Amino acid sequence: MGWNRNRLTEKLDIQYPVFQAPMAGGMTTPRLISEVSNSGGLGNMGAGYMNSDEIREDIRKIRSLTDKPFGVNLFVPNLGVSAQNEEISRMEEVLTQYSSELGIKEKLLLPKKDYGTLYEKQLEVVFEESVPVCSFTFGIPDSNVIRELNKQGTIIIGTATNVNEAVEWEDAGADLIVAQGSEAGGHRGTLHKEESGLIGSMALIPQVADAVSKPVVAAGGIMDARGIAAAMMLGAAGFQLGTVFLTCRESGANPIYKNAILNATEEQTVLTKAFSGKLARGISNRFTEEMEGQQLLPYPLQNDMTASLRKQAAKLEHPEFMSLWAGQGVRMAEEITVKELMLKLVKGTEALIDGK
Amino acid sequence: MGWNRNRLTEKLDIQYPVFQAPMAGGMTTPRLISEVSNSGGLGNMGAGYMNSDEIREDIRKIRSLTDKPFGVNLFVPNLGVSAQNEEISRMEEVLTQYSSELGIKEKLLLPKKDYGTLYEKQLEVVFEESVPVCSFTFGIPDSNVIRELNKQGTIIIGTATNVNEAVEWEDAGADLIVAQGSEAGGHRGTLHKEESGLIGSMALIPQVADAVSKPVVAAGGIMDARGIAAAMMLGAAGFQLGTVFLTCRESGANPIYKNAILNATEEQTVLTKAFSGKLARGISNRFTEEMEGQQLLPYPLQNDMTASLRKQAAKLEHPEFMSLWAGQGVRMAEEITVKELMLKLVKGTEALIDGK
Repeated sequence: MGWNRNRLTEKLDIQYPVFQAPMAGGMTTPRLISEVSNSGGLGNMGAGYMNSDEIREDIRKIRSLTDKPFGVNLFVPNLGVSAQNEEISRMEEVLTQYSSELGIKEKLLLPKKDYGTLYEKQLEVVFEESVPVCSFTFGIPDSNVIRELNKQGTIIIGTATNVNEAVEWEDAGADLIVAQGSEAGGHRGTLHKEESGLIGSMALIPQVADAVSKPVVAAGGIMDARGIAAAMMLGAAGFQLGTVFLTCRESGANPIYKNAILNATEEQTVLTKAFSGKLARGISNRFTEEMEGQQLLPYPLQNDMTASLRKQAAKLEHPEFMSLWAGQGVRMAEEITVKELMLKLVKGTEALIDGK
Repeated sequence: MGWNRNRLTEKLDIQYPVFQAPMAGGMTTPRLISEVSNSGGLGNMGAGYMNSDEIREDIRKIRSLTDKPFGVNLFVPNLGVSAQNEEISRMEEVLTQYSSELGIKEKLLLPKKDYGTLYEKQLEVVFEESVPVCSFTFGIPDSNVIRELNKQGTIIIGTATNVNEAVEWEDAGADLIVAQGSEAGGHRGTLHKEESGLIGSMALIPQVADAVSKPVVAAGGIMDARGIAAAMMLGAAGFQLGTVFLTCRESGANPIYKNAILNATEEQTVLTKAFSGKLARGISNRFTEEMEGQQLLPYPLQNDMTASLRKQAAKLEHPEFMSLWAGQGVRMAEEITVKELMLKLVKGTEALIDGK
């Protein structure tokens, strides 16, 4: 059993236990995902905000580009979320200064979205298309969903940010558990209190590995072969990288966003709720700084509320109002193709493991 | 060159590149330090709050117990710190409820302390005693101090919490650089803005190793051989462990404190300024919770202000008002002797490195 022949690669039938993280927001294009899977890893679709038609279309595109396994990531909604009208109006007002600065003429209004139905329909596609791997973030699906996925052979991945959450996922029937360290870019996958889910990978991985029997996938701060080899030593069987795939040529990240990542330092990545109401790590900018201390709407309302701002900012190539999610390993990002990156990761890991 | 034969072990003339972290507050007894050094690692005295006589006495005790190298850690003071009388009175008032709860009869008053003179005298002892290794936290010593330490052959270690700080230390003439990840227990060694120094070890170590040419010592989240092997893969030449030495039989930690560590989970360690005015990681308790949101005095004034509280709480075995510093790897702590621990670390690391 070498580093790439373990319970995880056997279970997933992939060559290397390297996952491209599912990043929601248009970055995980079918081309990115299929290139990762074709290179022996596991590409993952960040489908949390996609509707069922978009997911189906992307799944079919992926399948036209690869016959290898791939994953789809869904957000398990918390349906009890609401906000008072005054809170909504206050946030509309706060954001108006930014929307006028960006030349948005329409008044910012909170769109009505039915996240329960969105999630149901997303799941339907996962079943219809017999997706090989389905990962979940922000919550644990109902036991009947887990049972049905098991039945059709879909491998289930749960996202945990501390030991107790990892145990919850194992008890619920997850096949693999992603342990998301505090270094990770993007949203924290915490199930409960956000402040309980900020454990650095160096401490998180071994403690999760000690507590569960299912294979652990390390996420957070891994940017190259050194990170993979390190996470392996800590007890991880799989290695999920996000930020380093964002600057790959095949990623769908906006060029402005890619550029921001390529020029950022680790100090500049901050934890912020400004864009979505949920804690996430990204590159500090005017929006994250100026929204500091504001009373935000709960997730996903704040996210819906800032959507048109973020969209317009991207269109105008204005990074100060874009959500520039990135992990703390950001100095190690580079412009590269997926094939080159995967080769570097694989060869580098082998050299580190054999060389010691 | 194996894992324990590198630039760092050669420079320090030690057998294994394993450092017991210098933890201020009476935990790093001469017995703990000498046992670590006698076991082939580097014991370090947390001398930041000790006066020069205490340091001299401990150095002589250590030397009666070992002929191996050891280190002394000093806090470089920021002499510009002050607070308004009203702020001081307000904090005195806030703390009075706790002091009466603990049966302290005297009014809590801010003691006058001359940290500049304390530091000068601490340095004098380091020179007089020709201490083999001197590490510094919270600031960089003047260039003439560095020059003199160099001249007498004392090896200088600087504490950094991000890449820029590591480069600053290298430029200032440090021989080794401790990269303190956000997982670490106790005070953050950040030189500048505290929020810029919370990088997880998985991201911090490789980025620091890429930026400096001096050997990097990884600190934060390392509790066993897995952490050592991981940090090695990330590019560290040395490995500094704190929390795991606190529960060693030879540590001077209060039994109540040891017990709290042995029973804590990673979720329970929080970053707080409540005890000292400076960010530090410890086990959450009534004091850290209830002081949340209070306007604290700057370090070291808040620390001076809470000293008698902490002392009385320890005497009364009342953990809710003690500073229970601990890192995020706290579940991996165990009651053990230094010799047993060092053997486990060394054998375990060798097995991991050879086994892959």
